[in-house]
Amino acid sequence: MKKLVFGVDIGGTNTAFGLVDEAGDIYAESVVPTKKFLYFDDYPAFVVELCESMRRLMDSLSFEFNLLGIGIGAPNGNFHKGTIEQPANLWKFKPDEPNKDESRRLFNLTADMGKYFPSIPILLTNDANAATIGEMVYGNAKGMKDFIMITLGTGLGSGFVANGEMIYGHDGFAGEFGHTTVEKHNGRKCGCGRTGCLETYVSATGIKRTVFELMSKMTEPSEMRDISYNDFDASMVSAAAAKGDPIALEAFRFTGEMLGRALADAVVITSPEAVFLFGGLAKAGKFLFEPTKWYMEENMLAVFKNKVKILPSGIEGKNAAILGSAALIWQTQKA
Amino acid sequence: MKKLVFGVDIGGTNTAFGLVDEAGDIYAESVVPTKKFLYFDDYPAFVVELCESMRRLMDSLSFEFNLLGIGIGAPNGNFHKGTIEQPANLWKFKPDEPNKDESRRLFNLTADMGKYFPSIPILLTNDANAATIGEMVYGNAKGMKDFIMITLGTGLGSGFVANGEMIYGHDGFAGEFGHTTVEKHNGRKCGCGRTGCLETYVSATGIKRTVFELMSKMTEPSEMRDISYNDFDASMVSAAAAKGDPIALEAFRFTGEMLGRALADAVVITSPEAVFLFGGLAKAGKFLFEPTKWYMEENMLAVFKNKVKILPSGIEGKNAAILGSAALIWQTQKA
Repeated sequence: MKKLVFGVDIGGTNTAFGLVDEAGDIYAESVVPTKKFLYFDDYPAFVVELCESMRRLMDSLSFEFNLLGIGIGAPNGNFHKGTIEQPANLWKFKPDEPNKDESRRLFNLTADMGKYFPSIPILLTNDANAATIGEMVYGNAKGMKDFIMITLGTGLGSGFVANGEMIYGHDGFAGEFGHTTVEKHNGRKCGCGRTGCLETYVSATGIKRTVFELMSKMTEPSEMRDISYNDFDASMVSAAAAKGDPIALEAFRFTGEMLGRALADAVVITSPEAVFLFGGLAKAGKFLFEPTKWYMEENMLAVFKNKVKILPSGIEGKNAAILGSAALIWQTQKA
Repeated sequence: MKKLVFGVDIGGTNTAFGLVDEAGDIYAESVVPTKKFLYFDDYPAFVVELCESMRRLMDSLSFEFNLLGIGIGAPNGNFHKGTIEQPANLWKFKPDEPNKDESRRLFNLTADMGKYFPSIPILLTNDANAATIGEMVYGNAKGMKDFIMITLGTGLGSGFVANGEMIYGHDGFAGEFGHTTVEKHNGRKCGCGRTGCLETYVSATGIKRTVFELMSKMTEPSEMRDISYNDFDASMVSAAAAKGDPIALEAFRFTGEMLGRALADAVVITSPEAVFLFGGLAKAGKFLFEPTKWYMEENMLAVFKNKVKILPSGIEGKNAAILGSAALIWQTQKA
């Protein structure tokens, strides 16, 4: 009988899920609007709607199959506990909530879903780790034992693989490379409450901040000067760079410098075979890859020079997140 | 029959080796003076003397035993290849050597020793990684799956363990945390040819450099002002700090700040249960541990706060290096 797994990607706007086979083919997929369940009290209803939607998707298939497991990628997902802990954009307290103790915002998602899917293995990790395992199972990291995945979205996520295994760490939260401090002095404010974190420079939001800083420092004309901060989207930097816009080109050079320097420091720890760049900003191609590679090599300890590849992800596209989450289960089948 | 392994620690001055059982008891030990074999051309004679001395040590035991393997810790040791590659203080070219191509300084030590110990497994890694495995097998990291070892000697060595396994990396050289860049601007010159590396601040040499910088910046009297740079030893800073010397206390505070900040950045990658401090400088105890812990927590991403212990090594003492190297073999017996 055909074997399938569920890949579930929980995002702040939508939760996408699909039934995936070992080759990475998606047989059916659907979406639950996460943003309908904005508040803390909405979480139980979210679990019900998600699980019932998943059941309906299973029923929609016209053939018999074995469901081997459910893999979930979620912000602040804890692999060891199967929980989502204090997510920034999910199930927040209502403004009038009397008890805003953040430690209550700990959601036992795998246990809660287990009631709807008894005896089905359910694994959960954060979205960047899910993408990392997706890269290992379906993407360009096939066969690699040591690599780093960098996911560039609103923030910077990462996954580190060593000895062929995902590094989850003692508490299940390893791989927060976006929060390595790259500017000790006068660094940008970060959503995490600290300053100078890598993701304040290297991410969709980071390059937008860089463009606005450069507009104040440089005098060159740029079509980006006609757009307000709130209307600005990181894809506009790629478009401007393609036309030779000097501010956009400098923004990419600077972004690559920050990422390349940070990678040179990460390489001394895990000595990877390759670093994969995934997500919207990585689509800028050479504008991002070239300065990143150059500054990484320029700052690299001699023993690691010219050894570490910087490569595009092999699982880009709208289904990358579902594939990555599904790969959580497929990976256990291979062990 | 009793089972023993050889632990071999290759240093620039001496190579120490001993016959060790699974409990970490050393049955016999001896030394070959590495510094007698200073130059590139002396390497073959070093191998002969080391192997013959090891044979004699085996013959000196009055009981029968099985030799299960030979574990070696060496500077620039490559675990995957069993080689020592371009070591800074071993087998250098003579000043009059006509061909100073550094790539020739690649020593196939496990293969060369294998001729004297046929069919005995021989494993080699760098000295910090050997200490790390020693901590795991014999020391305070027993049972830990995720931890970081920091070895403080002339430089700063490190070993990272994740999922219960040593991270050697793709090329076998992972764990060079001493060469993470902690000062982007005006950093101290490092022996690696770059500037601002962690070990230029946090190591026996690093704290000595700090003391001399502080003597220029501060006006307080200090008995350390009577000692020349060349006569100065890092242990003098501990002695002065114990007497309340303000320069020594500030030197430890600064050293702990640099180490604590760097550890906060390393924690986001591997999320360890504990960080072990090993080696001479770690003997300063609270003078080093307290500021390190304080600055690590101060700079820590919220999710990791108050989770990571900073602990002394459990394998300190003159035989730590032999035990660490022996543990390389014992670890494979447990898998």
